Amino acid sequence: MRDAKILFIIHTCGLLLIVLSAAMVVPGLLDFAYGNPDWSTFAVSAAVTCFTGGAWVLMSHGRPLELDRRSGYLLTVVAWCLVGAFGSLPLLFSSLGLSVTDAVFETMSGLTTTGSTVLTGLDTMAPGLLLWRSLLQWIGGLGIVVMALVMLPVLRVGGMQLFRTESSDISEKPVPRVIQMATVTAIIYVSLSVLCAIGYDLAGMNAFDAINHAMATIATGGFSTKDASLGFYDSVPIEIVSIIFMSAGALPLVWYLHIVRNPSRLYRLDEQVKGFFLILVVSTLLMALWNVGHNGMTVAHALRVSAVNITSVLTDTGFATTDFSTWGSFAIGVFFMLMFIGGCAGSTAGAIKIFRWQLLFSGMRRQLTLTFSPSRAMPQRYAGRRIDPEMIVGVRNFFFLYLLTFALLTLGVTATGLDFVSSASGVAQAMANAGPGLGPIVGPAANFSTIPDVAKWLLVVGMLVGRLELLTVYVLLSPDYWRS
Amino acid sequence: MRDAKILFIIHTCGLLLIVLSAAMVVPGLLDFAYGNPDWSTFAVSAAVTCFTGGAWVLMSHGRPLELDRRSGYLLTVVAWCLVGAFGSLPLLFSSLGLSVTDAVFETMSGLTTTGSTVLTGLDTMAPGLLLWRSLLQWIGGLGIVVMALVMLPVLRVGGMQLFRTESSDISEKPVPRVIQMATVTAIIYVSLSVLCAIGYDLAGMNAFDAINHAMATIATGGFSTKDASLGFYDSVPIEIVSIIFMSAGALPLVWYLHIVRNPSRLYRLDEQVKGFFLILVVSTLLMALWNVGHNGMTVAHALRVSAVNITSVLTDTGFATTDFSTWGSFAIGVFFMLMFIGGCAGSTAGAIKIFRWQLLFSGMRRQLTLTFSPSRAMPQRYAGRRIDPEMIVGVRNFFFLYLLTFALLTLGVTATGLDFVSSASGVAQAMANAGPGLGPIVGPAANFSTIPDVAKWLLVVGMLVGRLELLTVYVLLSPDYWRS
Repeated sequence: MRDAKILFIIHTCGLLLIVLSAAMVVPGLLDFAYGNPDWSTFAVSAAVTCFTGGAWVLMSHGRPLELDRRSGYLLTVVAWCLVGAFGSLPLLFSSLGLSVTDAVFETMSGLTTTGSTVLTGLDTMAPGLLLWRSLLQWIGGLGIVVMALVMLPVLRVGGMQLFRTESSDISEKPVPRVIQMATVTAIIYVSLSVLCAIGYDLAGMNAFDAINHAMATIATGGFSTKDASLGFYDSVPIEIVSIIFMSAGALPLVWYLHIVRNPSRLYRLDEQVKGFFLILVVSTLLMALWNVGHNGMTVAHALRVSAVNITSVLTDTGFATTDFSTWGSFAIGVFFMLMFIGGCAGSTAGAIKIFRWQLLFSGMRRQLTLTFSPSRAMPQRYAGRRIDPEMIVGVRNFFFLYLLTFALLTLGVTATGLDFVSSASGVAQAMANAGPGLGPIVGPAANFSTIPDVAKWLLVVGMLVGRLELLTVYVLLSPDYWRS
Repeated sequence: MRDAKILFIIHTCGLLLIVLSAAMVVPGLLDFAYGNPDWSTFAVSAAVTCFTGGAWVLMSHGRPLELDRRSGYLLTVVAWCLVGAFGSLPLLFSSLGLSVTDAVFETMSGLTTTGSTVLTGLDTMAPGLLLWRSLLQWIGGLGIVVMALVMLPVLRVGGMQLFRTESSDISEKPVPRVIQMATVTAIIYVSLSVLCAIGYDLAGMNAFDAINHAMATIATGGFSTKDASLGFYDSVPIEIVSIIFMSAGALPLVWYLHIVRNPSRLYRLDEQVKGFFLILVVSTLLMALWNVGHNGMTVAHALRVSAVNITSVLTDTGFATTDFSTWGSFAIGVFFMLMFIGGCAGSTAGAIKIFRWQLLFSGMRRQLTLTFSPSRAMPQRYAGRRIDPEMIVGVRNFFFLYLLTFALLTLGVTATGLDFVSSASGVAQAMANAGPGLGPIVGPAANFSTIPDVAKWLLVVGMLVGRLELLTVYVLLSPDYWRS
């Protein structure tokens, strides 16, 4: 790799660190205003981060800046790791006395919008740290959407090139330039967050909780300011707001742009959006049926708890209103499988994602027909458009790699002594960036503080690899990548 | 579908039933010789089966016989179901008093070489029924190998066309004609069984047990004549014989033919054979390490119990010498994942199979390189030969369908109330035709008698679908298949 490219990576990472340090100022000011001594933690962290970032920017200044696709992978992975490392400083220096492992776990969990926590006593925690956790998710969420829009299609990662074609479609061309695209996305993201905060506020949360939960909701993150998560409020209006905005966060942000420009498109639903709501409704109804039949709930109660917890797991948010691990083995099976589905591409939701499942299904149907009538001409289509066969190969490989990674990480976690269901669900939720696992140890009623450190690091790898759509990380492991 | 084709299917099924009824005579004679009243059960079952088969053969006699690929799927599925149904008659009519569900479960488990049992008290059971269970596996195993050699490549099922090319390779052409191919395969199969029985006999089993276990071993079936399976004998020589012949059963039978014709090929191992032994050795060593470190076994004991139980699960045989479910979560993880690997194509072993994993891996590596250098020309190869891209698509689809089937059947089984690990491992072992699941309910120390009837039927579906390489069954579900 040439010097100029490495300098560009250093330069960009430096800029990101400066932005991160600016974000640290916000919770610092809040703690200062509340007279909480943790404000100095944020000040020191911001200073270290800003100084490092500034030095890197200056060091790489004035050199020719260039970036090709090949260095794009490295930039993406290095940037996420660096932001995760520096973002953990406030937690590490804080009065909580966290170990490096726990601080990095909590930060990466936030940044990747996973929402698994190792912290307890959230209800009485200083507001600065709570806000920092929410901000990590919110920044991470925006980072993901912009990355999915700008970088991943160019990086040809697991079928994401499908969305390059869409956004550069000549007939539509909503906003032609990348920077404009990112700005518009950010505006939509901020608007949704504001609407969500207003919603929570109207539904009865106080302003601080509403803002924090709004950031966690739109980012489909799942960090709460309460140990009992949304269950603390036991409020139907709050759960309805959360269902609406968790779903909103799991829809492609570009889709909102299309709708704002042309409201009639609301009735001509995007293929992914249709698929998402279909899965959401079917699995909610199935789970409600199970809860009525097996757990003896009333229909209304079953619908309520099924809707909010299913939405939370499908969108990979990770809020919970109750310990759904105790609903029986069918519920465990459903939640486990939902963790592999996820939301739409171009949203903050994780996992394999709706469009990949749709392509896998239609590819399977096509292949099934070709099995018994091999001479038939059957071009593969998606949303009415013809699909490049190489893209389907990318999606199928993504599926294989996803499950392979899941299997190997699960084996790694079981080797630390954690039981099989906790290990498998822990890894599945980490890769999907969901939040809680299943069972008494890592389930919705517990958290990740009790698992061994090695398991935490393996889950951090899972979160990062899942968030970066696997291939971004794995190409760096290929010897061919480093040649020439 | 035209009449002539349906008649051909009826004719073939009739012939198969006549063969099946002949097989029923053997345990009948044994019971008669031992003065066991169950001989009449076999006599009645054989009569019913022979009469039905004979009627069908006569009914369809004299008509033009024809078969195209399209009716090949139907024939395969119908034939397996019919043989399973008629094969369950001796169990159903026997003094054991089995329900239809249990009789069909036991028969299908035998015929598909799964080896999951609902029976206890094997140690004191009449010899006829024990022999019938072994015969079901042994016939099933031969049926599978012949089917894999003759039918599946033509049916283009999940990449099996790879082996059509191999067996019809002009430069090699070991035995050109199909019927000759099947005969040679049968000779190899019988020879291996005889060798295995001699091995068990020399290792200390009595003749009856040696013959039964040999049939279960070469068919990688796993039915034992003892409730404690191989653990009953607690004999190193017997375990060594079982390891050798379970592995022998999981190797492609055609490979033996190559070696007999040209012994120098033994040193130039088949790609699948290499892969199989690599996985076997690595996972045995890993498990032994875990057993020494976590379970405090001596090195020798750890190697012994790991080798025999890992071989049994990887080859999908299903013998057990101890309850490996109690070895801890890492062991559960390893055994669970081995259930998805399986042996070589063209053997009696089940699951996804070595060659598919090899193709998935090499396809993934290729795709990873193409991700960052898309213009590179990289034809996909297997064992030095160029691979038709459409075949790789078939393999990738097979993988997707396999996991999809696994997920849906697991959900179905959890809905009967069985716990998650029992459900998932039960389905995984059924689809892989392995034998025991994991955990206290369906694990090696237990059996399937206590699970709900609905779960048993779902597992029967899993066994059948897994055994017939999924697509053979699924094409019949496609509306397109029935058109025209």
